[in-house]
Amino acid sequence: MDATDMSWLETSIAARKGAGWSRKPETHELTEAKQGRFHYTIGPYSDPVLTVRPGDRIVVETRDAFEGVIKTEQDKPTQKLRLPFVNPQNGPIMIEGAERGDTVAVLIEQMVPRGPNPRGTCCMIPEFGALTGTYYTATLNDPLPEVVRKVDLDEQWVKWTDRVTLPYKPHIGTLSLSPEIDSINSLTPDNHGGNMDLPDMGPGSITYLPVRTAGARLFIGDAHACQGDGEVCGVAVEYPTVTTIRVDLIKGWAIEWPRLEREDFIMAIGSARPLEDAARIAYRELVRWMVAEYDFDQWDAYMMLSQCGRVRLGNFVDPKYTVGAGILKTYLRKP
Amino acid sequence: MDATDMSWLETSIAARKGAGWSRKPETHELTEAKQGRFHYTIGPYSDPVLTVRPGDRIVVETRDAFEGVIKTEQDKPTQKLRLPFVNPQNGPIMIEGAERGDTVAVLIEQMVPRGPNPRGTCCMIPEFGALTGTYYTATLNDPLPEVVRKVDLDEQWVKWTDRVTLPYKPHIGTLSLSPEIDSINSLTPDNHGGNMDLPDMGPGSITYLPVRTAGARLFIGDAHACQGDGEVCGVAVEYPTVTTIRVDLIKGWAIEWPRLEREDFIMAIGSARPLEDAARIAYRELVRWMVAEYDFDQWDAYMMLSQCGRVRLGNFVDPKYTVGAGILKTYLRKP
Amino acid sequence: MDATDMSWLETSIAARKGAGWSRKPETHELTEAKQGRFHYTIGPYSDPVLTVRPGDRIVVETRDAFEGVIKTEQDKPTQKLRLPFVNPQNGPIMIEGAERGDTVAVLIEQMVPRGPNPRGTCCMIPEFGALTGTYYTATLNDPLPEVVRKVDLDEQWVKWTDRVTLPYKPHIGTLSLSPEIDSINSLTPDNHGGNMDLPDMGPGSITYLPVRTAGARLFIGDAHACQGDGEVCGVAVEYPTVTTIRVDLIKGWAIEWPRLEREDFIMAIGSARPLEDAARIAYRELVRWMVAEYDFDQWDAYMMLSQCGRVRLGNFVDPKYTVGAGILKTYLRKP
Amino acid sequence: MDATDMSWLETSIAARKGAGWSRKPETHELTEAKQGRFHYTIGPYSDPVLTVRPGDRIVVETRDAFEGVIKTEQDKPTQKLRLPFVNPQNGPIMIEGAERGDTVAVLIEQMVPRGPNPRGTCCMIPEFGALTGTYYTATLNDPLPEVVRKVDLDEQWVKWTDRVTLPYKPHIGTLSLSPEIDSINSLTPDNHGGNMDLPDMGPGSITYLPVRTAGARLFIGDAHACQGDGEVCGVAVEYPTVTTIRVDLIKGWAIEWPRLEREDFIMAIGSARPLEDAARIAYRELVRWMVAEYDFDQWDAYMMLSQCGRVRLGNFVDPKYTVGAGILKTYLRKP
Repeated sequence: MDATDMSWLETSIAARKGAGWSRKPETHELTEAKQGRFHYTIGPYSDPVLTVRPGDRIVVETRDAFEGVIKTEQDKPTQKLRLPFVNPQNGPIMIEGAERGDTVAVLIEQMVPRGPNPRGTCCMIPEFGALTGTYYTATLNDPLPEVVRKVDLDEQWVKWTDRVTLPYKPHIGTLSLSPEIDSINSLTPDNHGGNMDLPDMGPGSITYLPVRTAGARLFIGDAHACQGDGEVCGVAVEYPTVTTIRVDLIKGWAIEWPRLEREDFIMAIGSARPLEDAARIAYRELVRWMVAEYDFDQWDAYMMLSQCGRVRLGNFVDPKYTVGAGILKTYLRKP
Repeated sequence: MDATDMSWLETSIAARKGAGWSRKPETHELTEAKQGRFHYTIGPYSDPVLTVRPGDRIVVETRDAFEGVIKTEQDKPTQKLRLPFVNPQNGPIMIEGAERGDTVAVLIEQMVPRGPNPRGTCCMIPEFGALTGTYYTATLNDPLPEVVRKVDLDEQWVKWTDRVTLPYKPHIGTLSLSPEIDSINSLTPDNHGGNMDLPDMGPGSITYLPVRTAGARLFIGDAHACQGDGEVCGVAVEYPTVTTIRVDLIKGWAIEWPRLEREDFIMAIGSARPLEDAARIAYRELVRWMVAEYDFDQWDAYMMLSQCGRVRLGNFVDPKYTVGAGILKTYLRKP
Repeated sequence: MDATDMSWLETSIAARKGAGWSRKPETHELTEAKQGRFHYTIGPYSDPVLTVRPGDRIVVETRDAFEGVIKTEQDKPTQKLRLPFVNPQNGPIMIEGAERGDTVAVLIEQMVPRGPNPRGTCCMIPEFGALTGTYYTATLNDPLPEVVRKVDLDEQWVKWTDRVTLPYKPHIGTLSLSPEIDSINSLTPDNHGGNMDLPDMGPGSITYLPVRTAGARLFIGDAHACQGDGEVCGVAVEYPTVTTIRVDLIKGWAIEWPRLEREDFIMAIGSARPLEDAARIAYRELVRWMVAEYDFDQWDAYMMLSQCGRVRLGNFVDPKYTVGAGILKTYLRKP
Repeated sequence: MDATDMSWLETSIAARKGAGWSRKPETHELTEAKQGRFHYTIGPYSDPVLTVRPGDRIVVETRDAFEGVIKTEQDKPTQKLRLPFVNPQNGPIMIEGAERGDTVAVLIEQMVPRGPNPRGTCCMIPEFGALTGTYYTATLNDPLPEVVRKVDLDEQWVKWTDRVTLPYKPHIGTLSLSPEIDSINSLTPDNHGGNMDLPDMGPGSITYLPVRTAGARLFIGDAHACQGDGEVCGVAVEYPTVTTIRVDLIKGWAIEWPRLEREDFIMAIGSARPLEDAARIAYRELVRWMVAEYDFDQWDAYMMLSQCGRVRLGNFVDPKYTVGAGILKTYLRKP
């Protein structure tokens, strides 16, 4: 993201409300070495790896969702992986001054593939994905085969096959603050964030997450070099990155579910099953947001979103599914 | 749609496979008078109003989804409407030579608001919509209020309120061929088409529908001047139009669910509850399509859609919900 | 059902409200020959086979759900069946005087296996059933195998295998009046009745169905010699019967969904997807019923059903799923 | 439960497989004082309150689901309760020798109301329950009213109202071992047990739970004096008890989901959303159980359950819903 793209940030919610936005940010490194043990649950019971102040920048070395153990196309996911020990998370990062009822803003500034010859990994895991019987949608059918795909990539392209090259569209799959008392595996999204798999959550986006414990306890991981809506086979192009984020703290802004902002739209995010419940949550939060902060009448907002609301399907493969409901900022301007 | 936009049509599936594509089309008028009684079910039991040949053009006078009875913002939907007598359909139009196992292509050429001072109608109908208890998601809560919005519109804009003006993005909400033996109310989408509410189904799109009875029996109605993803309050900007379509017949191309083509993408369409099942159907059909006609290996198609598939939520308010799963044509090119 | 069991009928809803209950019933025969063509859709577009008066008895020769074409365990369902031509229905039977807003009561008096050496049929049909990917829960897994089981039975026992003998517990799987304008395939239950697959709907039960067209248009079929909750593999022990019913007409009793009464309980029936919606419909109807006719306060009824409501899962394999929510009559007694 | 009822236990799975069944049990008291702080999450991060040996008896003082704070019918749940601090659990109780891959058996011997004038509590909590919009099935409707009912009860009867008295049918709503790394709030059932709300889980039942951490970490709470199928309003007759259980350890019996045994049937238990997925899990587990331990062919088990399977709806109000699928032991007898 070059400097030009940054200009909208000055009018963002984070810029208007963030306690540390105008500070000169201190930059922290969260290397693999500093991280030590990665985490597979998001909760209040793990030891902090870093403490930052609102407005600070953090450069994070993320691992891929398989923690690098799927090295060749001959590897079998069932032999290399054991649930729930997948989707390793960096963190928890403590944000100074954060208390229940606040909101943390996470601006993703940059995502760079890590390593000398960066490759991403996609695979089919038995009884995981949208077009197969699963652990929860339990069937007696034989599972689909295990297939692994290792994919060369750089900051422009993902070389899917000799035939198809896809644009590099990096984003963070799993971004979370700690729940109040639960500790939730990193495969599951919910109102704390978690494994949302939203392609919008890439460089140039700000994600807003509700603080439920003192210090907020930020977790981040699960970088995707690209991903289609719904992540239909259950796996994106998973890869290790150096991801640069800037975090801020919005005191007293209590939100119930994660929210996202980009240059041209805002989005509320819901995660639930069945999928219509995820969409209901997202749209209700968006209606409430428009009423609380953009001077809309509730029924006007509801009926207007029926004309111009935009839905992004994050995933429908995780233990809960994720939907974002958004609206263009141009429709939010006050008269 | 001006002549320039039309050029891609020459490479469309309809152009390649349609029996009547290269014919000089005859143009038929399906006026209100010629239609006579509109229909509220899609099935094999109604009398044809028109018979056309593959490649013909039809200019259809559609009524709005409330058949014009909601005239002012003081009207009460519950007093003016009685289910299942809503969403009136033009048709059935017979297509010469169509037999079970064929596919009909419907190109939407143009949608023009009808009447001297065209207005659209949106409203909140008790126990209908996504953010309320409904007939099927039965609750004991008091219903939401009845609210009616009458909206001025033209071929460029929809004047939602003094504050917000939305672009005119017309599309057909309900497009169907007859099921084999069922006759299905026009509120419900399924594998015959029906009330899909996909914003993509506007001018410049071609919809492919499976033929299940002799003559195909095409129904069309439910024009929207614009609509957000999901049609969250249950109602779009409903309005009467003059809609121009061109129909063609693809002999021996047997599809199971509706499909859609635009200049830059193809899309498979599924309708079901819960919403994840609609998405599963759409994505499975898209995988199968890529395998059958674009030389993809099944697992490669499945995993690749996990990286570049695009999902459109039609509606999640009807008796069944609709999802389209698409892929850019650029990724389908053969090496 | 012997004479003793019949005694409770005199206190049934049908006895209290039925127009023809006290009439001496005329008995009609609806043989296969008289039926002629069986029906695969339930709707207003088929020709009546019989007209009866409220209170009359009808002796119906039903076919099994596969219309007898699966004759041996070597038959392949996919070779013998073609959807939607399964689950053949007797009818429509017209009930004199029935108009929209009335209710028809159907007392099942007796179900006797038909034929010299009666056998039932169970089978596994690819992509049908609860523990497999299906047409709607679309997966890419290989289908389950086709397996056919032919089962000897009599009026006491179903000889499932050498190892297991099950009690004969006959019931009607599909019982319907016509929808107002739709014609719905006989595989799908909804507010008109249809393929509910409730084991309670056997001899000694009265089913109440809402009248939506003049004459009511009663359809009946799909006899099961026994069935577990949910009909998990998609098929019960399907068999041909001579089924004796008595029909009555309750003028001006407008119900929205089917209801059922047995000696000791009443039950409201909902059909929808996802399954929780079927349960919501059933319980809401039961609450409303208790309020309207048994002098309960709405919130008291709701909270009390949370303590003593009883749920029967009909099926979760059809295009819509069916749940019955019931309460013992003993808790309905007025003080 | 008197001595006579106990006799079947000698043939139970626990008796055949349990490491401590034939030991003379030591009896432990887990009083409120000994418990100290009750728990609202089920996980590996809390401090044990007791360690027992396989076969031991534990007498537990449970609190009601509201921890006793709803004292009168004038109390407002929204003023007295704060999520997630509801449904307090006793435990964790460590079982000596338990390791991942084992199973713990919990026999409920007795449940006695606690306190001098025992009363139960039922209430309606805004946006909680099956017939209302909820946190996940998000709607814009006004919430239902808050209603509280305090109910006298004893070991025979629950005095619901002057009009209706219900039988005392006690059971444990929430029974769990710890997940491997997650810590899950006590409102949510899943494969670790949790808030299953199965009326079958009362005195005379044995529940089998999969061990996922060393020592098993047993939690117990949420006693109901009675409950209808589905717990439709979201709350049963919640009350404090003295509950006597006996725990045993089955080494090397690895189960994936909870199971239950009573004198005449066995049951597999699934928890998920949507509700059909809970039923799918339960039935698949039951098929697998019949194949692994009762010598059934897989397809025979599947088709036979379609004829004689029995479904219990636990609840469809929690963050995940619970279904039990069972079969009579009489059908499991080997030839």
